[in-house]
Amino acid sequence: MPATKAIIARDPRFTALNWALEDVAVSDAPGDNEVLVEMVASGVCHTDIVLSAVPPGQVGVLYPKVMGHEGSGYARKVGKNVTGVVEGDPVLLSFYSCGKCEQCEEKHPSYCDAFAKENYGGRKGHVTITNTNTSSTGNGNSGDGEEVYSRFFGQSSFARYSIVDGACIVNAKDLLQSDDELALFAPLGCGFQTGMGAIENVARPDANTVLVVLGLGSVGIAALMTAALHPHKAIIGVDRLPSRLELAKELGATHTIDTSPPGFNLNKALREIFPNGVSTVIDTTGAPPLIEDGLKSLRQRGKIVLIGVTPMQYELGVSVVQHINSGRAVIGCIEGDCIPSEAIPKLIQWYREGRFPIDKLISYFEAHDFKKALAGLDDGSVVKAVLKWKDV
Amino acid sequence: MPATKAIIARDPRFTALNWALEDVAVSDAPGDNEVLVEMVASGVCHTDIVLSAVPPGQVGVLYPKVMGHEGSGYARKVGKNVTGVVEGDPVLLSFYSCGKCEQCEEKHPSYCDAFAKENYGGRKGHVTITNTNTSSTGNGNSGDGEEVYSRFFGQSSFARYSIVDGACIVNAKDLLQSDDELALFAPLGCGFQTGMGAIENVARPDANTVLVVLGLGSVGIAALMTAALHPHKAIIGVDRLPSRLELAKELGATHTIDTSPPGFNLNKALREIFPNGVSTVIDTTGAPPLIEDGLKSLRQRGKIVLIGVTPMQYELGVSVVQHINSGRAVIGCIEGDCIPSEAIPKLIQWYREGRFPIDKLISYFEAHDFKKALAGLDDGSVVKAVLKWKDV
Repeated sequence: MPATKAIIARDPRFTALNWALEDVAVSDAPGDNEVLVEMVASGVCHTDIVLSAVPPGQVGVLYPKVMGHEGSGYARKVGKNVTGVVEGDPVLLSFYSCGKCEQCEEKHPSYCDAFAKENYGGRKGHVTITNTNTSSTGNGNSGDGEEVYSRFFGQSSFARYSIVDGACIVNAKDLLQSDDELALFAPLGCGFQTGMGAIENVARPDANTVLVVLGLGSVGIAALMTAALHPHKAIIGVDRLPSRLELAKELGATHTIDTSPPGFNLNKALREIFPNGVSTVIDTTGAPPLIEDGLKSLRQRGKIVLIGVTPMQYELGVSVVQHINSGRAVIGCIEGDCIPSEAIPKLIQWYREGRFPIDKLISYFEAHDFKKALAGLDDGSVVKAVLKWKDV
Repeated sequence: MPATKAIIARDPRFTALNWALEDVAVSDAPGDNEVLVEMVASGVCHTDIVLSAVPPGQVGVLYPKVMGHEGSGYARKVGKNVTGVVEGDPVLLSFYSCGKCEQCEEKHPSYCDAFAKENYGGRKGHVTITNTNTSSTGNGNSGDGEEVYSRFFGQSSFARYSIVDGACIVNAKDLLQSDDELALFAPLGCGFQTGMGAIENVARPDANTVLVVLGLGSVGIAALMTAALHPHKAIIGVDRLPSRLELAKELGATHTIDTSPPGFNLNKALREIFPNGVSTVIDTTGAPPLIEDGLKSLRQRGKIVLIGVTPMQYELGVSVVQHINSGRAVIGCIEGDCIPSEAIPKLIQWYREGRFPIDKLISYFEAHDFKKALAGLDDGSVVKAVLKWKDV
């Protein structure tokens, strides 16, 4: 049982500040389908934050749990059913899928029947709290010997060591030019592939497309960079932060729109540029007013691709008569409908060709500075935070 | 000015029974882009009924007007800018599109910028009432010399003679084996192509598809027959009439569901057959409870294609978080996103091959018996009514 540290999230009903770095013991006996991974790095995704804010039970969420789902590291022990990876291999981690259900068989693993249960919930049995002084954690509830949920997204990569499901593993042995790249490529397995896949697998723009990306975080920027690789009529980046709008221009946006002025109206702003409306809106914000205005801003046959998580109970009202007359589409999308073992090598290839410069988007933090990472994401100074686990 | 008769619809706020066969004078001077057509037949589409029930102004609707938008007949005078048709040619009529806007240029004429204005509204200037005794019409408002809107769907084909826009015309000279087929093929230009196109252009089923067709009128049956031409896992026809369910089985449905039992729940009924849900729902009913249950019944990556007109103000609530997690799509569709000049010959070809037996679906009525046609559509004894104009 390696003694190590992990970021634990507690039931948000009982503690407002529910992330804390805690002492844990992690099992060193992976199951037959599992791998013990020594983590090098793990990206912080907005979904970590969202899924530590919803009450337990909603969309399968359970507490307390080890967060993290954009991990990278080295395989240290490999379960006997796991193929394609041996001890010592560098690995990049993505979400879990069962490999057996209808959606997995049809090669759409992000819609796996077990997705919510295994990725949002996870399982107990691998991680035990070993704090001796609970007050030092600032996290209220922890105590020595308490079992917590791990296998969050099949990986719980906010930990120096973690038991990871074999289905989450992309062997990086033939993908890396140096060990340093493990930290750079850690976030490919969720945020970046989500934005890429929303374009490649769902929106599928053509040369006539006027594309709008709402929210220029890592997912939105990835969508924008991917769209810029294709012929298009326009790519419009929308955010409230001047720094993000600048970044969007640098990475291929033909137009940017600042949502921060008082009384801002997205539909009006877009129709000032394109009076007939826009072809495709990619929403990464989950902000209902922007989604509603995004739908209104669509031209005939336009589509809105929903990625950003709204408040859990929120319903978007779709006027059916207008929807029919306009031939519009409202499409949900998770993980970009990607197959990680194909998406991650593709993104690395694009990076090497200089067409997907993720190095411009990443800020690194030591794991114990995770609160600085969260603050940077919150104030917008950080696009993608990657935590490093080596010195924990 | 040919003296003839036409079915006129009056503002429904002032007259409940707002269709009446009235004496009219029709201009015999088509404009440069128009053709005077001597009508042989015209299908009655549910849209005729819907668009004579909405108040004026909504979705561009105007009154009084000559209805009818599934016409067929002979070109009698051809405007100088109209190409591809000469006097005497048999013609099949479809909706109007401008040919110049972005959507027309991209070959999606049913999303033409002018669609609502020209097809739901129309224009004045071609048809004048010539009733001398208004009480004989049962229609309240008409009077000698009153100008009415025509060019409904560019054609106003509920008339013995009508001025039709050249854009509506599909030359049938090389498509017919006999003149009698003009009446048989009249409805291809709206209802049948709508159902066909919803499958071919929008739903695009594959061998794993479990397809549900809600409502087995002419549009639903056309969708079902089209789906049956492709490999599929299941095709489920849903209606409240036993005769329609029988017809669906005969035409390729693998399952049927009767919505008439008290307390019927579509989602429950579908999940009893396919517990994981269904791939694709085509709604032709416009009934909100069926649409809402249809959305709920979708499996992961499922889509609902909305065709049936709901109450004008109705909004379908889409749970965004669920939509994202399920990768579902809500898609509006009008006229099956068809190009009539391609769709109509394709349907005729399928009919000749015995794969699209529209002859089983059509009941013919003399135009002056239009109320019998409406009654048959209302009680379900008629799938597609076609009015014949020869003896009017």
